[in-house]
Amino acid sequence: MERPTIALLTDFGTRDAYAGIVKGVLASRTPEARVIDLTHEIPAGDTRAAALQLWQAYAYLPPGTVCLAIIDPGVGSRRRPIAVRLPNGYGVGPDNGLFSFLLAPDRVSEAVIIDVARLTAAAPSLTFHGRDVFAPAAARLAQGAGLSDLGPPAGDIVALPSPRLELNDRGAVGEVLWIDSFGNAVTSLGSLRASGTRLELDPCWRAHPPVSFDASAARVQIPGRRLPLSHTYADVPAGEALAYVGSSRLLEIGVHGRRADEVLGLLRGIPVMLLFEG
Amino acid sequence: MERPTIALLTDFGTRDAYAGIVKGVLASRTPEARVIDLTHEIPAGDTRAAALQLWQAYAYLPPGTVCLAIIDPGVGSRRRPIAVRLPNGYGVGPDNGLFSFLLAPDRVSEAVIIDVARLTAAAPSLTFHGRDVFAPAAARLAQGAGLSDLGPPAGDIVALPSPRLELNDRGAVGEVLWIDSFGNAVTSLGSLRASGTRLELDPCWRAHPPVSFDASAARVQIPGRRLPLSHTYADVPAGEALAYVGSSRLLEIGVHGRRADEVLGLLRGIPVMLLFEG
Amino acid sequence: MERPTIALLTDFGTRDAYAGIVKGVLASRTPEARVIDLTHEIPAGDTRAAALQLWQAYAYLPPGTVCLAIIDPGVGSRRRPIAVRLPNGYGVGPDNGLFSFLLAPDRVSEAVIIDVARLTAAAPSLTFHGRDVFAPAAARLAQGAGLSDLGPPAGDIVALPSPRLELNDRGAVGEVLWIDSFGNAVTSLGSLRASGTRLELDPCWRAHPPVSFDASAARVQIPGRRLPLSHTYADVPAGEALAYVGSSRLLEIGVHGRRADEVLGLLRGIPVMLLFEG
Repeated sequence: MERPTIALLTDFGTRDAYAGIVKGVLASRTPEARVIDLTHEIPAGDTRAAALQLWQAYAYLPPGTVCLAIIDPGVGSRRRPIAVRLPNGYGVGPDNGLFSFLLAPDRVSEAVIIDVARLTAAAPSLTFHGRDVFAPAAARLAQGAGLSDLGPPAGDIVALPSPRLELNDRGAVGEVLWIDSFGNAVTSLGSLRASGTRLELDPCWRAHPPVSFDASAARVQIPGRRLPLSHTYADVPAGEALAYVGSSRLLEIGVHGRRADEVLGLLRGIPVMLLFEG
Repeated sequence: MERPTIALLTDFGTRDAYAGIVKGVLASRTPEARVIDLTHEIPAGDTRAAALQLWQAYAYLPPGTVCLAIIDPGVGSRRRPIAVRLPNGYGVGPDNGLFSFLLAPDRVSEAVIIDVARLTAAAPSLTFHGRDVFAPAAARLAQGAGLSDLGPPAGDIVALPSPRLELNDRGAVGEVLWIDSFGNAVTSLGSLRASGTRLELDPCWRAHPPVSFDASAARVQIPGRRLPLSHTYADVPAGEALAYVGSSRLLEIGVHGRRADEVLGLLRGIPVMLLFEG
Repeated sequence: MERPTIALLTDFGTRDAYAGIVKGVLASRTPEARVIDLTHEIPAGDTRAAALQLWQAYAYLPPGTVCLAIIDPGVGSRRRPIAVRLPNGYGVGPDNGLFSFLLAPDRVSEAVIIDVARLTAAAPSLTFHGRDVFAPAAARLAQGAGLSDLGPPAGDIVALPSPRLELNDRGAVGEVLWIDSFGNAVTSLGSLRASGTRLELDPCWRAHPPVSFDASAARVQIPGRRLPLSHTYADVPAGEALAYVGSSRLLEIGVHGRRADEVLGLLRGIPVMLLFEG
């Protein structure tokens, strides 16, 4: 068997040893696994931000990766601990929608409720299931177990509402999903793909046929401002704003050499319009 | 030999490459070792916070782990560099009490003074013993050396004062030890274990027989406020405060869905009383 | 072949999954490589800070390490993606001077322009060459490829201006290069080496013969203040300022037990004079 990979995403921050403790459990139970930290700085309890980060990272993880996602504001309540089959591996975490954007919205997911008694003789704590439930379950999958080894079928699992994406002939309306650490705004307008002089918008969050439009004629509208659709920061003068197809093939809004969130007053949830003919 | 583990805890922060440099030294000297970052964000020079984080993490590290703890405000002074036997592995760092909470308070520790000349021909810097003294010593232990290979016996080593914990028939008095990254307050009241409808307090910081009490009748008192003793956040309405047995089996104080430190004005050192009959 | 090491230095921060995505690409393409995070908190686009951190860390990385440095404010513009031979390994990143301080200023560097078509069939994004160009190139080198496998010779590559260092018989003038996470100021005055009661300054940024002087008679001058040249923090009373030879053998300015940047008002670029006879 190849060396398994566990990708770790939490809202633990890096000030406490919580993420290190999870890695200690993984090292104890699956010593040969590689652990990749995606981030530990998801805003506390923000399942939507976590789902987006997982979606952005997923295609770049090795085949078979176990995604261990611990954003768990409901820890100790009746929310269920689950493991779910992802397109190319597994997801482990609380049943609160963390894997929503990785799963086809119209299909039933293959998921199980984690039965802790199968993983450890000790009673789990009530406040740190990352350590006591999810890490042992992820380790078991990394060791080669199948979903059915972890517990009984979960049936329907929680799904987050899809990011905003409305389409008509004249354009598309989406929203700012995330402000990244450079201050760029990642929007829900995607996925976009260049095709000669045209762009194709193939809606990634809903079932809708792709739409093709002339990239040079398109414009982007945010409240109070219209932006050019360019390729990269250096296409506009320093200090100027632009929209561009970001590295996840979502439309992004940036400012050459500065923080777009500060210059343009961007916040998560702000509506963004893509006008096919400026 | 199994693949050895080195757990790293520092106050270096993550902005400089200092932690990366320590990992470079470890990779050069013990290529097969796994390094687990516990945290690099111990407040600068705060040996007490470091000792608590080590105590919380220790039980979850693989057997034989070398704990490399570099919180070293006295670097270059006459404080001694030591290596010490821990219950299930080793500790390496300055002799300033970092391992106090992992060592039985009433027993002599098996510790040595690190003799740098046995590790490297180069003279160590005066300000970065993490790189020049402690990492090479930890690597040597990870490679299978024994304590006595590193240097002569250290005799008594520095011990931090134990966390506050006073017990009588009516209750126990402790203190807030740490505010975690969620804003929860970890107290010195522990360790606690559920036993049917009762809780048992088995003092972890001092020699005292365990005390058992009725969990449902108990209350927790902080300055100006009395809190219910519950199981987990979801047991109280959103925005309400509670005390609960935390994941390290210490009493913690939290607020459902918010930061307890902000809502309740909690700080390290504030007294906390556990009243057995509310 | 020994297990290869890739050292990663970026300005991505740790809040987004960008660094994790780069590590996912590395794990997919060179599963056996060890990845060492130097830091992800270089100030955005600050190639000079990055070059200094690489210089400080370099000697402590395992032989053959591939330094993957992604500080790329010109991503998507005509700046070239390069790979360059370093004294004991390789550097991979944008051609913007990141490796300047590791390369002899008077010699031609052996460097190539990365030809993306040799690495992947997919067209790279315009805004995340760390993921699409540099990580695949670093993985290829870690797998044993040579520079010439990556692309054609680059000819001259971009060099950053050297840190300030002017020498005469009475002393040397340099500048504050960096404020570290403890608040200590790392200066360009170096490298310094103790030799009995004397110090030797062997200019590391320019061609100039070493200068030797009496350490006990020397003083350090910053705007408005003269400081003693001591060995380590504990040599002066708590709260007092000092200069000392830092762990990279550059002169540093610190305050015993406090942040020197706050106490002394230090900023990057401030001139610092080392007077051989105070």
